[in-house]
Amino acid sequence: MTPFRLRLAVDMDEVLADAFSAQRAWFRRTCGYEWTDTELRGRRFRDLVSPEDYAAMEAMLHQGDFFASLDVMPGAQEAISALCETCEVFITTAAMEYPASCAPKFAWLREHFPCISPLNIVFCGDKSILAADVMIDDNLRHFRRFQGQGVLFTAPHNALETWSPRADNWQDVLAIVDRIDEDR
Amino acid sequence: MTPFRLRLAVDMDEVLADAFSAQRAWFRRTCGYEWTDTELRGRRFRDLVSPEDYAAMEAMLHQGDFFASLDVMPGAQEAISALCETCEVFITTAAMEYPASCAPKFAWLREHFPCISPLNIVFCGDKSILAADVMIDDNLRHFRRFQGQGVLFTAPHNALETWSPRADNWQDVLAIVDRIDEDR
Repeated sequence: MTPFRLRLAVDMDEVLADAFSAQRAWFRRTCGYEWTDTELRGRRFRDLVSPEDYAAMEAMLHQGDFFASLDVMPGAQEAISALCETCEVFITTAAMEYPASCAPKFAWLREHFPCISPLNIVFCGDKSILAADVMIDDNLRHFRRFQGQGVLFTAPHNALETWSPRADNWQDVLAIVDRIDEDR
Repeated sequence: MTPFRLRLAVDMDEVLADAFSAQRAWFRRTCGYEWTDTELRGRRFRDLVSPEDYAAMEAMLHQGDFFASLDVMPGAQEAISALCETCEVFITTAAMEYPASCAPKFAWLREHFPCISPLNIVFCGDKSILAADVMIDDNLRHFRRFQGQGVLFTAPHNALETWSPRADNWQDVLAIVDRIDEDR
Protein backbone atom coordinates (compact mmCIF):
# COMPACT_ATOMS: atom_id res chain seq x y z
CA MET A 1 0.00 0.00 0.00
CA THR A 2 1.36 3.41 -0.95
CA PRO A 3 0.38 6.07 1.57
CA PHE A 4 0.77 8.95 -0.89
CA ARG A 5 0.28 8.96 -4.61
CA LEU A 6 3.23 10.03 -6.71
CA ARG A 7 2.79 13.59 -7.91
CA LEU A 8 3.73 14.33 -11.53
CA ALA A 9 4.37 17.73 -13.10
CA VAL A 10 3.84 17.32 -16.85
CA ASP A 11 4.93 19.93 -19.41
CA MET A 12 2.74 20.83 -22.42
CA ASP A 13 4.75 21.96 -25.46
CA GLU A 14 6.66 19.03 -27.07
CA VAL A 15 5.35 16.69 -24.34
CA LEU A 16 1.53 16.81 -24.62
CA ALA A 17 1.21 19.22 -27.56
CA ASP A 18 3.18 19.01 -30.78
CA ALA A 19 4.31 22.66 -30.92
CA PHE A 20 7.49 21.62 -32.75
CA SER A 21 5.75 20.28 -35.87
CA ALA A 22 3.45 23.31 -35.98
CA GLN A 23 6.40 25.73 -35.75
CA ARG A 24 8.33 23.80 -38.38
CA ALA A 25 5.31 23.97 -40.70
CA TRP A 26 4.88 27.70 -39.98
CA PHE A 27 8.53 28.42 -40.91
CA ARG A 28 8.17 26.42 -44.14
CA ARG A 29 4.89 28.07 -45.11
CA THR A 30 5.81 31.63 -44.11
CA CYS A 31 9.54 31.86 -44.78
CA GLY A 32 10.30 28.90 -47.07
CA TYR A 33 12.64 27.03 -44.69
CA GLU A 34 13.03 23.32 -45.42
CA TRP A 35 14.97 21.16 -42.97
CA THR A 36 15.64 17.45 -42.76
CA ASP A 37 15.10 15.76 -39.39
CA THR A 38 18.88 15.37 -39.12
CA GLU A 39 19.43 19.11 -39.53
CA LEU A 40 17.06 19.76 -36.63
CA ARG A 41 18.73 17.38 -34.17
CA GLY A 42 20.25 19.25 -31.24
CA ARG A 43 19.22 22.65 -32.55
CA ARG A 44 16.49 25.17 -31.82
CA PHE A 45 14.66 27.16 -34.46
CA ARG A 46 16.31 30.36 -33.26
CA ASP A 47 19.70 28.92 -34.31
CA LEU A 48 18.43 28.10 -37.81
CA VAL A 49 16.50 31.15 -38.99
CA SER A 50 17.23 34.85 -39.47
CA PRO A 51 16.58 37.17 -36.50
CA GLU A 52 13.74 38.79 -38.49
CA ASP A 53 12.03 35.47 -39.17
CA TYR A 54 12.42 34.44 -35.54
CA ALA A 55 10.90 37.75 -34.41
CA ALA A 56 7.97 37.18 -36.77
CA MET A 57 7.40 33.74 -35.24
CA GLU A 58 7.54 35.19 -31.72
CA ALA A 59 5.02 37.89 -32.69
CA MET A 60 2.74 35.12 -33.93
CA LEU A 61 3.17 33.18 -30.66
CA HIS A 62 2.34 36.34 -28.68
CA GLN A 63 -1.12 36.36 -30.27
CA GLY A 64 -1.82 33.07 -28.53
CA ASP A 65 -4.05 31.43 -31.18
CA PHE A 66 -1.17 29.20 -32.31
CA PHE A 67 -1.64 27.14 -29.14
CA ALA A 68 -5.33 26.50 -29.78
CA SER A 69 -4.96 23.97 -32.58
CA LEU A 70 -1.81 21.95 -31.84
CA ASP A 71 -1.85 18.21 -32.42
CA VAL A 72 -1.71 15.93 -29.40
CA MET A 73 1.56 14.00 -29.05
CA PRO A 74 1.16 10.30 -29.93
CA GLY A 75 0.06 8.17 -26.99
CA ALA A 76 -0.25 11.13 -24.61
CA GLN A 77 -4.00 10.86 -24.03
CA GLU A 78 -3.95 7.15 -23.20
CA ALA A 79 -0.88 7.56 -20.97
CA ILE A 80 -2.28 10.54 -19.05
CA SER A 81 -5.58 8.70 -18.53
CA ALA A 82 -3.66 5.73 -17.11
CA LEU A 83 -1.45 7.95 -14.91
CA CYS A 84 -4.48 9.77 -13.52
CA GLU A 85 -5.60 6.41 -12.05
CA THR A 86 -2.50 5.97 -9.91
CA CYS A 87 -0.82 9.39 -9.59
CA GLU A 88 -1.66 13.03 -8.92
CA VAL A 89 -1.12 14.61 -12.35
CA PHE A 90 -0.51 18.36 -12.71
CA ILE A 91 0.03 20.04 -16.07
CA THR A 92 2.75 22.64 -15.57
CA THR A 93 3.50 24.83 -18.52
CA ALA A 94 5.74 27.87 -18.93
CA ALA A 95 3.10 30.24 -20.32
CA MET A 96 4.46 33.52 -18.99
CA GLU A 97 6.63 34.25 -22.03
CA TYR A 98 3.39 34.39 -24.03
CA PRO A 99 0.65 35.48 -21.59
CA ALA A 100 -1.99 35.44 -24.35
CA SER A 101 -1.40 31.69 -24.62
CA CYS A 102 -3.06 31.01 -21.23
CA ALA A 103 -6.68 30.99 -22.43
CA PRO A 104 -6.10 28.85 -25.57
CA LYS A 105 -3.84 26.48 -23.63
CA PHE A 106 -6.52 26.08 -20.97
CA ALA A 107 -9.20 25.37 -23.59
CA TRP A 108 -6.90 22.91 -25.40
CA LEU A 109 -6.28 20.96 -22.19
CA ARG A 110 -9.99 20.85 -21.35
CA GLU A 111 -10.71 19.50 -24.85
CA HIS A 112 -7.95 16.90 -25.17
CA PHE A 113 -7.30 15.97 -21.51
CA PRO A 114 -10.70 16.20 -19.79
CA CYS A 115 -9.51 13.91 -16.97
CA ILE A 116 -7.20 16.69 -15.75
CA SER A 117 -9.03 18.93 -13.28
CA PRO A 118 -8.72 22.66 -14.04
CA LEU A 119 -7.37 22.98 -10.49
CA ASN A 120 -4.37 20.84 -11.56
CA ILE A 121 -3.36 23.18 -14.38
CA VAL A 122 -0.43 25.51 -13.64
CA PHE A 123 0.80 28.36 -15.82
CA CYS A 124 4.20 29.52 -14.65
CA GLY A 125 7.61 30.69 -15.79
CA ASP A 126 10.37 29.56 -13.43
CA LYS A 127 9.43 25.93 -12.72
CA SER A 128 11.53 25.72 -9.56
CA ILE A 129 8.34 26.90 -7.81
CA LEU A 130 6.79 23.43 -8.37
CA ALA A 131 6.52 20.83 -5.63
CA ALA A 132 6.26 17.39 -7.24
CA ASP A 133 7.96 14.01 -7.20
CA VAL A 134 8.52 13.74 -10.94
CA MET A 135 8.77 16.38 -13.68
CA ILE A 136 8.31 15.31 -17.30
CA ASP A 137 9.75 18.03 -19.52
CA ASP A 138 11.74 18.56 -22.72
CA ASN A 139 13.87 21.35 -21.19
CA LEU A 140 16.72 20.28 -18.93
CA ARG A 141 16.97 23.74 -17.35
CA HIS A 142 13.78 23.12 -15.38
CA PHE A 143 15.39 20.19 -13.54
CA ARG A 144 18.26 22.22 -12.08
CA ARG A 145 16.45 23.52 -8.98
CA PHE A 146 13.66 20.91 -8.99
CA GLN A 147 13.41 18.92 -5.76
CA GLY A 148 12.10 15.75 -7.45
CA GLN A 149 13.21 13.52 -10.34
CA GLY A 150 13.37 15.08 -13.79
CA VAL A 151 12.43 12.87 -16.76
CA LEU A 152 13.66 14.31 -20.06
CA PHE A 153 11.08 13.90 -22.81
CA THR A 154 12.91 13.60 -26.13
CA ALA A 155 12.47 16.44 -28.61
CA PRO A 156 14.71 17.27 -31.58
CA HIS A 157 16.33 20.20 -29.73
CA ASN A 158 17.42 18.01 -26.77
CA ALA A 159 18.51 14.96 -28.82
CA LEU A 160 22.20 15.52 -27.99
CA GLU A 161 21.76 16.24 -24.25
CA THR A 162 22.95 13.72 -21.69
CA TRP A 163 20.31 12.98 -19.05
CA SER A 164 18.86 9.94 -17.40
CA PRO A 165 16.07 8.99 -17.27
CA ARG A 166 15.07 9.95 -20.79
CA ALA A 167 11.71 9.09 -22.37
CA ASP A 168 11.50 8.84 -26.16
CA ASN A 169 7.72 8.49 -26.08
CA TRP A 170 4.77 8.07 -23.70
CA GLN A 171 5.30 4.32 -23.37
CA ASP A 172 8.73 5.11 -21.94
CA VAL A 173 7.18 7.61 -19.52
CA LEU A 174 4.81 4.96 -18.16
CA ALA A 175 7.67 2.51 -17.61
CA ILE A 176 9.89 5.15 -15.93
CA VAL A 177 7.11 6.39 -13.64
CA ASP A 178 6.33 2.80 -12.65
CA ARG A 179 9.96 2.26 -11.73
CA ILE A 180 10.19 5.50 -9.71
CA ASP A 181 6.98 4.58 -7.90
CA GLU A 182 8.31 1.11 -7.01
CA ASP A 183 11.71 2.41 -5.89
CA ARG A 184 10.50 4.94 -3.35
CA MET B 1 25.35 35.19 5.59
CA THR B 2 22.25 33.38 4.34
CA PRO B 3 23.07 30.77 1.70
CA PHE B 4 19.57 30.75 0.19
CA ARG B 5 17.05 33.53 0.04
CA LEU B 6 13.67 32.87 1.57
CA ARG B 7 11.11 32.09 -1.10
CA LEU B 8 7.66 33.67 -0.74
CA ALA B 9 4.46 32.65 -2.52
CA VAL B 10 2.16 35.69 -2.42
CA ASP B 11 -1.54 35.52 -3.28
CA MET B 12 -3.26 38.24 -5.35
CA ASP B 13 -6.97 38.67 -4.48
CA GLU B 14 -7.44 40.26 -1.01
CA VAL B 15 -3.64 40.31 -0.53
CA LEU B 16 -2.25 42.44 -3.37
CA ALA B 17 -5.52 43.37 -5.12
CA ASP B 18 -8.64 44.62 -3.36
CA ALA B 19 -11.13 42.27 -5.00
CA PHE B 20 -13.31 42.36 -1.87
CA SER B 21 -14.14 46.09 -2.10
CA ALA B 22 -14.80 45.82 -5.82
CA GLN B 23 -17.18 42.86 -5.33
CA ARG B 24 -18.95 44.64 -2.48
CA ALA B 25 -19.42 47.72 -4.69
CA TRP B 26 -20.65 45.53 -7.56
CA PHE B 27 -23.30 43.87 -5.34
CA ARG B 28 -24.45 47.28 -4.06
CA ARG B 29 -24.60 48.82 -7.54
CA THR B 30 -26.11 45.84 -9.35
CA CYS B 31 -28.35 44.21 -6.75
CA GLY B 32 -28.81 46.89 -4.07
CA TYR B 33 -27.13 44.99 -1.22
CA GLU B 34 -25.90 47.20 1.65
CA TRP B 35 -23.83 45.62 4.41
CA THR B 36 -22.02 47.05 7.41
CA ASP B 37 -18.43 45.91 7.99
CA THR B 38 -19.67 43.95 11.01
CA GLU B 39 -22.18 42.02 8.90
CA LEU B 40 -19.36 40.96 6.56
CA ARG B 41 -17.06 39.63 9.30
CA GLY B 42 -16.52 35.90 8.99
CA ARG B 43 -18.81 35.57 6.00
CA ARG B 44 -18.42 35.21 2.26
CA PHE B 45 -20.59 36.94 -0.33
CA ARG B 46 -22.10 33.61 -1.36
CA ASP B 47 -23.59 33.28 2.16
CA LEU B 48 -25.18 36.73 1.96
CA VAL B 49 -26.80 36.97 -1.46
CA SER B 50 -29.41 35.03 -3.42
CA PRO B 51 -28.16 32.17 -5.63
CA GLU B 52 -29.23 34.17 -8.71
CA ASP B 53 -27.25 37.24 -7.66
CA TYR B 54 -24.23 35.10 -6.86
CA ALA B 55 -24.46 33.42 -10.26
CA ALA B 56 -24.62 36.86 -11.91
CA MET B 57 -21.44 37.88 -10.06
CA GLU B 58 -19.69 34.68 -11.12
CA ALA B 59 -20.72 35.27 -14.74
CA MET B 60 -19.17 38.73 -14.45
CA LEU B 61 -15.96 37.28 -12.99
CA HIS B 62 -15.80 34.75 -15.85
CA GLN B 63 -15.48 37.61 -18.33
CA GLY B 64 -12.17 38.50 -16.69
CA ASP B 65 -12.26 42.32 -17.06
CA PHE B 66 -13.18 42.72 -13.39
CA PHE B 67 -9.59 41.85 -12.50
CA ALA B 68 -8.09 44.57 -14.73
CA SER B 69 -9.01 47.57 -12.60
CA LEU B 70 -8.77 46.45 -8.96
CA ASP B 71 -7.21 48.80 -6.42
CA VAL B 72 -3.87 47.84 -4.92
CA MET B 73 -4.03 46.87 -1.23
CA PRO B 74 -2.57 49.59 1.04
CA GLY B 75 1.17 49.26 1.54
CA ALA B 76 1.51 46.29 -0.83
CA GLN B 77 3.71 47.99 -3.42
CA GLU B 78 6.25 49.31 -0.90
CA ALA B 79 6.32 45.98 0.96
CA ILE B 80 6.77 43.87 -2.19
CA SER B 81 9.57 46.18 -3.38
CA ALA B 82 11.31 45.74 -0.03
CA LEU B 83 10.79 41.95 -0.01
CA CYS B 84 12.19 41.66 -3.55
CA GLU B 85 15.52 42.96 -2.17
CA THR B 86 15.95 40.13 0.30
CA CYS B 87 13.66 37.27 -0.81
CA GLU B 88 12.60 35.38 -3.92
CA VAL B 89 9.04 36.62 -4.45
CA PHE B 90 6.54 34.62 -6.51
CA ILE B 91 2.97 35.75 -7.12
CA THR B 92 0.79 32.65 -6.90
CA THR B 93 -2.85 33.14 -7.70
CA ALA B 94 -5.72 30.70 -8.10
CA ALA B 95 -6.81 31.80 -11.57
CA MET B 96 -8.15 28.49 -12.86
CA GLU B 97 -11.71 29.05 -11.61
CA TYR B 98 -11.83 32.03 -14.00
CA PRO B 99 -9.40 31.26 -16.86
CA ALA B 100 -10.26 34.53 -18.62
CA SER B 101 -8.76 36.34 -15.64
CA CYS B 102 -5.21 35.24 -16.56
CA ALA B 103 -4.49 37.96 -19.13
CA PRO B 104 -5.93 40.89 -17.10
CA LYS B 105 -4.24 39.61 -13.93
CA PHE B 106 -0.92 39.39 -15.76
CA ALA B 107 -1.29 42.96 -17.10
CA TRP B 108 -2.34 44.25 -13.65
CA LEU B 109 0.75 42.74 -12.06
CA ARG B 110 3.06 44.17 -14.71
CA GLU B 111 1.51 47.62 -14.17
CA HIS B 112 1.45 47.72 -10.37
CA PHE B 113 4.32 45.38 -9.44
CA PRO B 114 6.94 45.87 -12.17
CA CYS B 115 9.68 44.52 -9.87
CA ILE B 116 8.11 41.04 -10.14
CA SER B 117 9.55 39.17 -13.13
CA PRO B 118 6.90 37.60 -15.40
CA LEU B 119 8.75 34.32 -14.79
CA ASN B 120 7.77 34.57 -11.10
CA ILE B 121 4.04 34.76 -11.81
CA VAL B 122 2.08 31.52 -11.28
CA PHE B 123 -1.56 30.89 -12.20
CA CYS B 124 -2.79 27.74 -10.55
CA GLY B 125 -5.72 26.13 -8.80
CA ASP B 126 -4.60 23.65 -6.11
CA LYS B 127 -1.76 25.53 -4.39
CA SER B 128 -0.25 22.39 -2.87
CA ILE B 129 1.81 22.25 -6.09
CA LEU B 130 3.88 25.23 -4.84
CA ALA B 131 7.37 24.84 -3.41
CA ALA B 132 8.11 27.85 -1.19
CA ASP B 133 9.16 28.67 2.37
CA VAL B 134 6.32 31.05 3.14
CA MET B 135 2.83 31.42 1.66
CA ILE B 136 0.93 34.68 2.23
CA ASP B 137 -2.74 34.03 1.55
CA ASP B 138 -6.21 34.90 2.82
CA ASN B 139 -7.50 31.31 2.38
CA LEU B 140 -6.52 28.83 5.08
CA ARG B 141 -7.29 25.86 2.85
CA HIS B 142 -4.13 26.50 0.83
CA PHE B 143 -1.95 25.91 3.92
CA ARG B 144 -3.20 22.37 4.54
CA ARG B 145 -0.82 20.55 2.21
CA PHE B 146 1.76 23.34 1.93
CA GLN B 147 5.28 22.31 2.94
CA GLY B 148 6.27 25.78 4.23
CA GLN B 149 4.81 28.31 6.70
CA GLY B 150 1.40 29.77 5.92
CA VAL B 151 0.80 33.41 6.88
CA LEU B 152 -2.90 34.28 6.97
CA PHE B 153 -3.57 37.72 5.49
CA THR B 154 -6.64 39.15 7.20
CA ALA B 155 -9.75 39.61 5.06
CA PRO B 156 -13.34 40.03 6.29
CA HIS B 157 -14.22 36.42 5.38
CA ASN B 158 -11.39 34.96 7.53
CA ALA B 159 -11.78 37.33 10.50
CA LEU B 160 -13.07 34.56 12.78
CA GLU B 161 -10.51 31.90 11.79
CA THR B 162 -7.84 30.82 14.25
CA TRP B 163 -4.36 30.79 12.69
CA SER B 164 -0.95 31.99 13.63
CA PRO B 165 0.87 33.85 12.22
CA ARG B 166 -1.77 36.28 10.99
CA ALA B 167 -1.00 39.56 9.21
CA ASP B 168 -3.56 42.36 9.40
CA ASN B 169 -1.66 44.47 6.86
CA TRP B 170 1.57 44.61 4.88
CA GLN B 171 3.56 46.05 7.81
CA ASP B 172 2.69 42.87 9.71
CA VAL B 173 3.83 40.75 6.75
CA LEU B 174 7.25 42.42 6.74
CA ALA B 175 7.68 41.82 10.48
CA ILE B 176 6.57 38.16 10.23
CA VAL B 177 8.81 37.41 7.23
CA ASP B 178 11.76 39.00 9.06
CA ARG B 179 11.12 36.74 12.03
CA ILE B 180 10.81 33.60 9.89
CA ASP B 181 14.03 34.51 8.08
CA GLU B 182 15.91 34.99 11.37
CA ASP B 183 14.58 31.77 12.92
CA ARG B 184 15.65 29.39 10.19
